[in-house]
Amino acid sequence: MTSPVRLALLGCGTVGGDVVRLLHEQSADLAARIGAPLEIAGIAVRRLGRDRGDLPVDPALFTTDPLGLIKRDDVDVVVEVVGGIEPARGWLVEALRAGKSVVTANKALLAEDGATLHDAAAEGGADLYYEASVAGAIPLLRPLRESLHGDRITRVTGIVNGTTNFILSAMDATGAGFAEALEEATELGYAEADPTADVEGFDAAAKAAILASLAFHTRVTAADVHREGITEVTAADVASAKAMGCTIKLLCIAARGVDAAGGETVNVRVHPAMIPLTHPLARVGDAFNAVFVEADAAGQLMFYGRGAGGAPTASAVLGDVVAVARNRIAGVHAASESAYAGLSVRPMGEALTRYHISLDVADRPGVLAAVAGVFARHEVSIATVRQGPAGGDAELVIVTHVAPDAALAATVRELRGLETVRSVTSVLRVEGDA
Amino acid sequence: MTSPVRLALLGCGTVGGDVVRLLHEQSADLAARIGAPLEIAGIAVRRLGRDRGDLPVDPALFTTDPLGLIKRDDVDVVVEVVGGIEPARGWLVEALRAGKSVVTANKALLAEDGATLHDAAAEGGADLYYEASVAGAIPLLRPLRESLHGDRITRVTGIVNGTTNFILSAMDATGAGFAEALEEATELGYAEADPTADVEGFDAAAKAAILASLAFHTRVTAADVHREGITEVTAADVASAKAMGCTIKLLCIAARGVDAAGGETVNVRVHPAMIPLTHPLARVGDAFNAVFVEADAAGQLMFYGRGAGGAPTASAVLGDVVAVARNRIAGVHAASESAYAGLSVRPMGEALTRYHISLDVADRPGVLAAVAGVFARHEVSIATVRQGPAGGDAELVIVTHVAPDAALAATVRELRGLETVRSVTSVLRVEGDA
Repeated sequence: MTSPVRLALLGCGTVGGDVVRLLHEQSADLAARIGAPLEIAGIAVRRLGRDRGDLPVDPALFTTDPLGLIKRDDVDVVVEVVGGIEPARGWLVEALRAGKSVVTANKALLAEDGATLHDAAAEGGADLYYEASVAGAIPLLRPLRESLHGDRITRVTGIVNGTTNFILSAMDATGAGFAEALEEATELGYAEADPTADVEGFDAAAKAAILASLAFHTRVTAADVHREGITEVTAADVASAKAMGCTIKLLCIAARGVDAAGGETVNVRVHPAMIPLTHPLARVGDAFNAVFVEADAAGQLMFYGRGAGGAPTASAVLGDVVAVARNRIAGVHAASESAYAGLSVRPMGEALTRYHISLDVADRPGVLAAVAGVFARHEVSIATVRQGPAGGDAELVIVTHVAPDAALAATVRELRGLETVRSVTSVLRVEGDA
Repeated sequence: MTSPVRLALLGCGTVGGDVVRLLHEQSADLAARIGAPLEIAGIAVRRLGRDRGDLPVDPALFTTDPLGLIKRDDVDVVVEVVGGIEPARGWLVEALRAGKSVVTANKALLAEDGATLHDAAAEGGADLYYEASVAGAIPLLRPLRESLHGDRITRVTGIVNGTTNFILSAMDATGAGFAEALEEATELGYAEADPTADVEGFDAAAKAAILASLAFHTRVTAADVHREGITEVTAADVASAKAMGCTIKLLCIAARGVDAAGGETVNVRVHPAMIPLTHPLARVGDAFNAVFVEADAAGQLMFYGRGAGGAPTASAVLGDVVAVARNRIAGVHAASESAYAGLSVRPMGEALTRYHISLDVADRPGVLAAVAGVFARHEVSIATVRQGPAGGDAELVIVTHVAPDAALAATVRELRGLETVRSVTSVLRVEGDA
């Protein structure tokens, strides 16, 4: 058997600990699959001497000097599970330029500045793998960067944040409001003490950028992603969705479009949206993730599984470790970044979507005509109008056909100013075929 | 750009035609992704001069000499979409031994004698890719043979035959019997004139063998797979499933087990089974396919999409073509067959499963005691007993706990002989957590 492939592990929290455990438990299988044993050369942590439970690893392997560890001659592969932009970026660039392959779960870094990592990988002739950065254990990036390379992906629609999916599933199941559902999620450990990254959609936006880059062979960063969180989703919104045979999910959507000149574009966005219960994504409950891919020839595909947690993320990390270790032994490296298409990333206003709008209106003749006139002025076509249960006032529920988001937003702004509209009680985008 | 990678296409039916079309439509993208253009060197068909519609290809490329085409010096990659054992096996062995990489959709050949192909690939230093052989467009084999290589798969449960899923979905939706639903499937083009391969489970069994081989790093052939089709599933069975909150699917199941000596084993089987509506596979309707994978660290994963049809299958073929073409340019080949585990494949009798049994019994005291005694004698534990709506006679519906299939089958045989049991009206396995 070939000499061992030696790993530097950067970070030893929940995911890092599970990586160490799996390396230990599966060592014979991993060696058989790779053709050489895997060995941990060192583990960089912030503080030595912290209690790490019964981690099956020699305590002498721990170091507080990540750069020193990366530079060691006996380190072949660097596995980064620290997260964040710096100092992770500096470490990984150093490793890649030195020709050491990198496996990382760092979605924030890849979404903010993946280009720097890809360039460093190309420069050093090293592999850069990051399956764990999106949708945890679900094998998703490799299918996008390999399996579907004979096809033309038109749209990716994903539930890629477990925390918000747990909250929205709870709101749907119990009728609870956002605050109450968030509290439950926090108690059960599905939401962090500071849930901002999840509930405001930052985490999903980073993953959307990574997915869009792979699906459309175009560099897309987190800054390109239109982002809305779920903090303003109300129990009334959830009830409206139910009345429509829908549920509300926080979706990341990356879709091809066409600009005014006929050129191909991409739009990438994260926002809550109603989807029909008949859509495969509607059934994705609890903290599960799923990504729905549409391609010209393949049609509709879906990938489903656990998007977070130590063991699922460690599974994805180790899958990548096996791949880069095999490449190392074969003396090859994987296909590098594919960004040849360089499609233009267009702003949210040009995204094509549908709106579901609930209006509290005065109950008198001429109201519908006035409301319909606003839609017509913005060239937004109405699909259905429903008159809600009339109390003293009347409720109008309108679902539009597909239109540019800017036209829909302008319609809503004008509706708010209409004298006969007492309030716009709910505005939600609608995705998925009805 | 590098010189072209040249393909020999064997077969030009539905899938082959779509491969040709996609190669034409996506040629610029494919060339950018590979780093070299793809060219068709020749297309082997049975008869020249057949009308092939508006296929965008030079008619001079057609030949009736597949072996001659394969042997040509200017052929780099062989794409086989003919199917069947011979003459395909001879062609592919010839190609692989000559160092020409092979992309094939031939599930029957891989399941019957994959070993010969893998050995030829190793001998010739060539790639053997076959994503299209299972579950059409769904990227499934690459995740199994790469992404999950850092994990330990415990079970694979799949709906891998679109025809039978269409038939069972129709029976579930309309209450129709098997014959009527088959007729509808035939009319709509979901079933072939001779539906034997689908409805008797041969097609699913071939796919089960391929999945089991990859998931468990063990050579499994179609002959190792216990196979039951859906021809004996009745409208009454479907109604019984509904009453249990279940639906009936034709499942392929490959699961780890343990033999009497404590050694690891594998059991592979195809049969109809009840699964609870809460299981992700229960919602897979129409002719869609889905494969549910359970792994130690990753937990539950599901892959969903179209399992058949020209374009979806061609998408999978071309994804493989891109991979082997890239490997060819890089002068490398992919990891070869992984069969190091060599687990023992155990017979159906040792498979652990649950049974749902409906009995038509005499309505008199002591019946349940007699029936329960039979279960006890075979050490089968009863989970639930339900007394059906009593007509003149009584109906007993029994669901067992998990037990070896042989013990369950022996229990049913003895029940049939019991004086108080008028008939055993339905026996179905139950899969998935209730």
